[in-house]
This record gives sequence, C-alpha cells and structure tokens, in this order.
Amino acid sequence: MTARFEQGDRGLLVLGGARSGKSRHAQALAEARGGELVFVATGQAFDDEMRDRIARHQADRDGRWRTVEAPLDLAEAIGDVSGHTVLVDCLTLWTSNLLLDEADWENATARLIEAIQAHHGTLILVANEVGLGIVPDNALARRFRDMAGTINQRVAAAVDRVHFLAAGLPLALK
Amino acid sequence: MTARFEQGDRGLLVLGGARSGKSRHAQALAEARGGELVFVATGQAFDDEMRDRIARHQADRDGRWRTVEAPLDLAEAIGDVSGHTVLVDCLTLWTSNLLLDEADWENATARLIEAIQAHHGTLILVANEVGLGIVPDNALARRFRDMAGTINQRVAAAVDRVHFLAAGLPLALK
Amino acid sequence: MTARFEQGDRGLLVLGGARSGKSRHAQALAEARGGELVFVATGQAFDDEMRDRIARHQADRDGRWRTVEAPLDLAEAIGDVSGHTVLVDCLTLWTSNLLLDEADWENATARLIEAIQAHHGTLILVANEVGLGIVPDNALARRFRDMAGTINQRVAAAVDRVHFLAAGLPLALK
Repeated sequence: MTARFEQGDRGLLVLGGARSGKSRHAQALAEARGGELVFVATGQAFDDEMRDRIARHQADRDGRWRTVEAPLDLAEAIGDVSGHTVLVDCLTLWTSNLLLDEADWENATARLIEAIQAHHGTLILVANEVGLGIVPDNALARRFRDMAGTINQRVAAAVDRVHFLAAGLPLALK
Repeated sequence: MTARFEQGDRGLLVLGGARSGKSRHAQALAEARGGELVFVATGQAFDDEMRDRIARHQADRDGRWRTVEAPLDLAEAIGDVSGHTVLVDCLTLWTSNLLLDEADWENATARLIEAIQAHHGTLILVANEVGLGIVPDNALARRFRDMAGTINQRVAAAVDRVHFLAAGLPLALK
Repeated sequence: MTARFEQGDRGLLVLGGARSGKSRHAQALAEARGGELVFVATGQAFDDEMRDRIARHQADRDGRWRTVEAPLDLAEAIGDVSGHTVLVDCLTLWTSNLLLDEADWENATARLIEAIQAHHGTLILVANEVGLGIVPDNALARRFRDMAGTINQRVAAAVDRVHFLAAGLPLALK
C-alpha cells in the first residue's frame, strides 16, 4: 500500500525511529498542502543537546512557518489554530513532558484526541516508535514506553492516515 | 499487502513492539475465528508490575476463554489443546523464562515448531520484536535479543501468516 | 508492495533489527545474482563474542565468496571491486568503527555514497535499524544512533531498492 496523504485526508500520524526522516517527511507533506503553516513544538531546551536539535529543526523551516510552543497544553494549542495547516512535532517529547510533570496523561490524551477530531484543516502529528528494543532496566523508562505506545495507538485510531518511516522512506500503516 | 487471516490459514504470528496492540489484535482474530478458545499464558507473576500486566490482559478476555499456564513447557501445552482455537501470549516471555531457567532453548524451540506444525485448528502466537534498538550494554540482554530474534524467525517460517503491529495497526509480512 | 530485486536493480539496502535474517536475505539475493562474489566485512574481532559472530557468518558462505576487510575504508574497498557482485555487511559496524576512530563520518559517508553511485554490477548493503527503542541513557549511544540513522537515510536514497527485514521476512520500503 503506497503511503498516501490526499486532499480528503485531514489527519496524519508520522511514526518512526530516531533519525528516520519523520520530521522532514511531515514537513514536506504540510508544505505541499499549503494554507497557513503552524508548527506546534513540544520540545523544551533543557540542555545543549536539545537546544541543538531544536535549532537544527528550526533551520529546516522557512519563513512561511509560524511556531507555537506547547510542551504540555497540546490540546489547547491545536484548538487555537483550527483551520490552519498544523504540524505537531512531536508527541513523544510531549509524553515525556507529561511524565516529568506528573500530569494526568490519560486525561491529556483524551483531550488531545478531541482536539484532533475537532480540527478543521490539515493536522500532521509526528511520534517516535520506542517499543521495539529490549525491555528497559528502569521502571520509569518502562512506564514512558507504555505511555508512548498507548498514545500512538489512540492517535493512530483518530487520524485518517498513518505513515511509518524508516531510512527516510514511508510505509503506509493506514 | 493487506494483513489477512483467512479461513484456510491456521497459524499466525503477531509481531510488534511494546504497547503496539499485539494482544488485542491477536485476541480479536481468535474470537472472530470461534471454536473453543484457549489462552496459553507464558508470563509469570514475579512482581507487582507483572501481576498488573497479567490482570489487565485477563480483564480483556471474557468468559469464553479458558486459560492454561505454560511458562516453560509450551510445546506440551499446545499439544494438549490441539483442535481448539489457541492464542499463545507471548513467545518473548517464554524466551525470557527459558533463559532464566538455563533451559536448552534450541531444543525447546524445535519442539515448539513441531507442536505448531502438528496443531489442528487455529493457532495464533504473539511475540515482541526486540532487536530494533541499540545494542544492549550487558551480555545477557544481547543473548536474550539473539534468542528472541532467532525464535521469531523460526516461528515465522512455520506459520501461514505474519502480522507486524505498530500503533495498533497490522502490516502483513507474510 | 512485494520485496523485489530485479535484474535492472543494482543497489539494494537490507535494513532490519538484530537477528532479523538480514545477512541471510542479502547473501541469498547476491548468490542468485551470480557474478564474482565479494564479501566486504566491516566487523572487527575485538572480543570472543564478535569473533564467534564473524566465524558464524563466514561458515554461512561457501567457497564462491572472496572476503575483503574494510573496517574504515569502505568507499575504497567498494571502489576496488567494481563490476563484481558485492555484499557489504554491515554499515552499522562501520558506523561504530568510525565513531570509535573519531573519524570524519560525514565525509566518509559522502565518499561511500559516491562509491555506491560509481559501482558497476550488483551492490547489496546490510544495515541495522537501531532507532526504535527508547532514547539511550548515554550521549555516545545517542550520537551513534543519530549517525546510523542518518547514514541509513543517505544510503537508502542512493540505492534502487530497500528491504526491511523482520522475523526473516522482507518488506519493500523502496
């Protein structure tokens, strides 16, 4: 099945590993779609490594993009830009922020799903698949892995298309 | 290729990461198939986390299911319920049990393959893909990873269909 | 999409996890292609575990294969055997060697891509996907993961076909 994202499709989840080309793929599809481009960033610049990563991603986007920061209040951020072409990058950093903040992630996820369903216009969400290595030693990492997997399943069910990226190449899951 | 499991197909391997929706997918296909439903559980309740996980999976199954415990003697357990609709969840916990028990896993795997081939009726096996992260630091984890990958290959060769699950969505590998 | 590798296809990347059947799949396709068979080995026998792994892979190849060692100078090694049927196993060990050697990996990768494009005859490259587990604790492992993912993307763009292996079964990414 070819990895499609056609005019009638509004919601897309781009899933993949680290450096699989997820962000680039998602961004290219959003730009091809057109409309007012809004980038919803969930990453927080806690340290130099993260600052570098954020700066590199920013450099990949040109002046057409407006950036909104949403480390925790993702549903609200999406609600604020309904009608635009929105790229959320990424759900896995958001999951990590929820965990560190000891937030009610089940509730936050339910509100995210509502925001996805209420969105008018294109909505592309990027997420990491993190469950395909061996079981992590520490309990927090296992909890994070379970949360991320559960959130990916719920978002996948709520969007029209899901693309799995590996080595820069998309595979259609939905 | 659509993820099929048709009347003529008897053996299915459901492969995926943590919280990828493997168990739910496998269970839904087994229930759709009908017949006498037997759940072969390989997990052992060593600690609270595992007890929770087992309880949650049990709560997902209704009264139609009979549960058989087979932490080590999996081939024998499958042999005992030939003719029924059998769901084995999961091969990776079984692999872990074999490793901790210092059992002859090559031999146990050979006997599992024979049991799969001898089974009359539907047989669905769930397994984790654990080899897609970075190489683990410790030698035992590397051995486990090698065992799990080898067992997945052998079982995949012995069944009619293999589904890879990600974010709750199946992809046909065979 | 069926995992094809046809007469007109010259370059193939075989991507997968540990014990996913990558090497066997790549070797079978190379042998089916015929010509003078050259195995380009990037692994170094630093310890017993690695020595075992190399010996086991060697035992899988018969007398038709000539072996060339290229732990670092991979572009040069490929350049030396242009016209032959070449199997490089694997890019991920090469990446690890570059990292440990503190080599200029961006430059080495650029030269590898040139060598792939200049190669006459069949060229099959094996690589691990290592980015689908949780984020590694240590910075070196994260750097390695980023390098490996980036190299996989560049090589995938330079070859005709990409196969993703899981449980011994190929899935076409390209």
